[in-house]
Amino acid sequence: MKQLTVDLGERSYPIYIGEGILSDLAARLADHKIGVKSPLLVVTDERVSSHYLAPVRERLEAAGYRVATAVVAPGEKSKSLAVFEDVITVALEAGLDRNSTVIALGGGVVGDLAGYVAASYMRGIRFVQIPTTILAHDSSVGGKVAVNHRLAKNVIGAFHQPEFVLYDTATIRTLPEREVRAGLAELVKEGFIMDRAFVEYCDANAEKLLALDAEALQHALYAGCAVKAKVVSADEKESGLRAVLNLGHTIGHALEAVSGYDELLHGEAIAIGMVGAAMLSVKLGNSPSIAEETERILRKFGLQVRIPAHLDTDAIMSAMMRDKKFKEGKMVFIIPTEIGKVEINGDVPAEWVREIVERLKGEA
Amino acid sequence: MKQLTVDLGERSYPIYIGEGILSDLAARLADHKIGVKSPLLVVTDERVSSHYLAPVRERLEAAGYRVATAVVAPGEKSKSLAVFEDVITVALEAGLDRNSTVIALGGGVVGDLAGYVAASYMRGIRFVQIPTTILAHDSSVGGKVAVNHRLAKNVIGAFHQPEFVLYDTATIRTLPEREVRAGLAELVKEGFIMDRAFVEYCDANAEKLLALDAEALQHALYAGCAVKAKVVSADEKESGLRAVLNLGHTIGHALEAVSGYDELLHGEAIAIGMVGAAMLSVKLGNSPSIAEETERILRKFGLQVRIPAHLDTDAIMSAMMRDKKFKEGKMVFIIPTEIGKVEINGDVPAEWVREIVERLKGEA
Repeated sequence: MKQLTVDLGERSYPIYIGEGILSDLAARLADHKIGVKSPLLVVTDERVSSHYLAPVRERLEAAGYRVATAVVAPGEKSKSLAVFEDVITVALEAGLDRNSTVIALGGGVVGDLAGYVAASYMRGIRFVQIPTTILAHDSSVGGKVAVNHRLAKNVIGAFHQPEFVLYDTATIRTLPEREVRAGLAELVKEGFIMDRAFVEYCDANAEKLLALDAEALQHALYAGCAVKAKVVSADEKESGLRAVLNLGHTIGHALEAVSGYDELLHGEAIAIGMVGAAMLSVKLGNSPSIAEETERILRKFGLQVRIPAHLDTDAIMSAMMRDKKFKEGKMVFIIPTEIGKVEINGDVPAEWVREIVERLKGEA
Repeated sequence: MKQLTVDLGERSYPIYIGEGILSDLAARLADHKIGVKSPLLVVTDERVSSHYLAPVRERLEAAGYRVATAVVAPGEKSKSLAVFEDVITVALEAGLDRNSTVIALGGGVVGDLAGYVAASYMRGIRFVQIPTTILAHDSSVGGKVAVNHRLAKNVIGAFHQPEFVLYDTATIRTLPEREVRAGLAELVKEGFIMDRAFVEYCDANAEKLLALDAEALQHALYAGCAVKAKVVSADEKESGLRAVLNLGHTIGHALEAVSGYDELLHGEAIAIGMVGAAMLSVKLGNSPSIAEETERILRKFGLQVRIPAHLDTDAIMSAMMRDKKFKEGKMVFIIPTEIGKVEINGDVPAEWVREIVERLKGEA
């Protein structure tokens, strides 16, 4: 097992990463002074619950915990105020009190929803993240929790840090292959932001990672979480630096919005966005190798790095203009200047972006 | 104008108290670096809006601010997730961004609702409190914001401190007399907790306060807010000391619950609870004068300090047992040991409490 710390002063917390460590959950809770007097609430979704809820519950109960459960539908639709209220109702009916703890067992949707419940219930109770997807390495570290409003994603939420994150690499193995690829795209993204050695590791170990080899996964989740933890420690409330984590997101979010959130997985859209950001970097005068390398490495993970041809360029451009990351009408991009280094550029001409979008649609 | 500071390190903020100072709102916003670029959202209720919304809006617009407004129904029913979502919708449609500010113009319901919107919108934006009732001196200081769930009050919320509180004594004069009396009960309560001189001031100036004399109100709101600010500074997240503010609340909340929240105003219930707590103090061995003085002073404000005879003693007792302030089945009371001093007693025998409840029902 590996362990790293998200350094946030008195809100610091550890991330445990290892194969099979979900079976240590009760011991971990006890280590973190989460006692058996107050009930726990495990929030999960229907897909994850079929694999892990029964064993988690049995082990917790065997250790003396009272365990309430809220099982929500899988997918983004569960990140709503209506589902949030349902989970609060479960918490109240189960008698959760100020010393209770909410455990998020699942991917990013479950983590964001359960985290916002923990942030809000009785004005804030404790919270534990058990991510079960690769993608959730991102959402489970950093304390950003939220639900969606019909007019905007993630617009109702809080910053609420967990007591700890427990990442069991075995849980990843129930993921569909397409989600594995998309998750690995987000993971290698962390390397492109500030860890060249990790990008090289991914390049050299792509097959092992795609095969979900325990040791390779543990290494990669550790490296990815470490980048996220470093950035979050430096900028807990997202006042500046934290924006570097959005590498690939400017184009990526627009593609998700235009394709209606069901054609592309988040990681697939980000992979295309990373290649777009790298192409912009070349236009800004950086070495052409940055675009070639970004594309070559992402293709190794079986990712499609072109925009589906049927998506309309004008629609993509106007989706980018609406994104909340745009400040006062200018286009902001996270630009990879070399492998493992990025800069925030708030001055990217819209016509360059349009040119890159068209280029990304043109070639296969 | 008087000014005091709630001392919370980097989250410290001032409370401005004075006659007619609502007309300085735009200048105050500017002092607090709340600029005109991002829209403001004023949240208020139908009663308050008829008196103050138009002038507030006009002055803000004259100063260059864009102002969105959300006007909710008066009363506790507006502290719901449904109304919360409606206000978020107004904020999104008005284009509020991360630099926007929510202004609560009203009593405790408006402050709690608007504060939770500010705490949650884009994971937290700035917030200004403009309390327009005496009672709101309590809710507007301390950063506790929340909405209700059908199963429990104030159970969905956050700690979110305002940028400043602006208390215009002129706004109090539109309150119905009964609400004035009930509000003054909560205000003098702050004195009983830790300011004997303020209790003596209230005793000597009850008529002026009831007549809403500007100078007396300014003095009393200042003294009441000062007690609240002192306690909150010492215990922002309600881990211990802050409980002293609940003097009178153990019996008071039970009376509100049993009478269905429409027979007694909050301050009226607290006044009865304060007398009950003082009677318990005498039973615990403190001077009988504490009960006599508490009762005499509250009666000066025209408050009824007896439990309505038709309320059932068993129902009152079991409501107290359900209250979230009870820990592990024991009865917790804030006990006034002398005027201006309280202690937390977690060991009060239930039979003593029953005896006091019956005594409070017996005499007129």
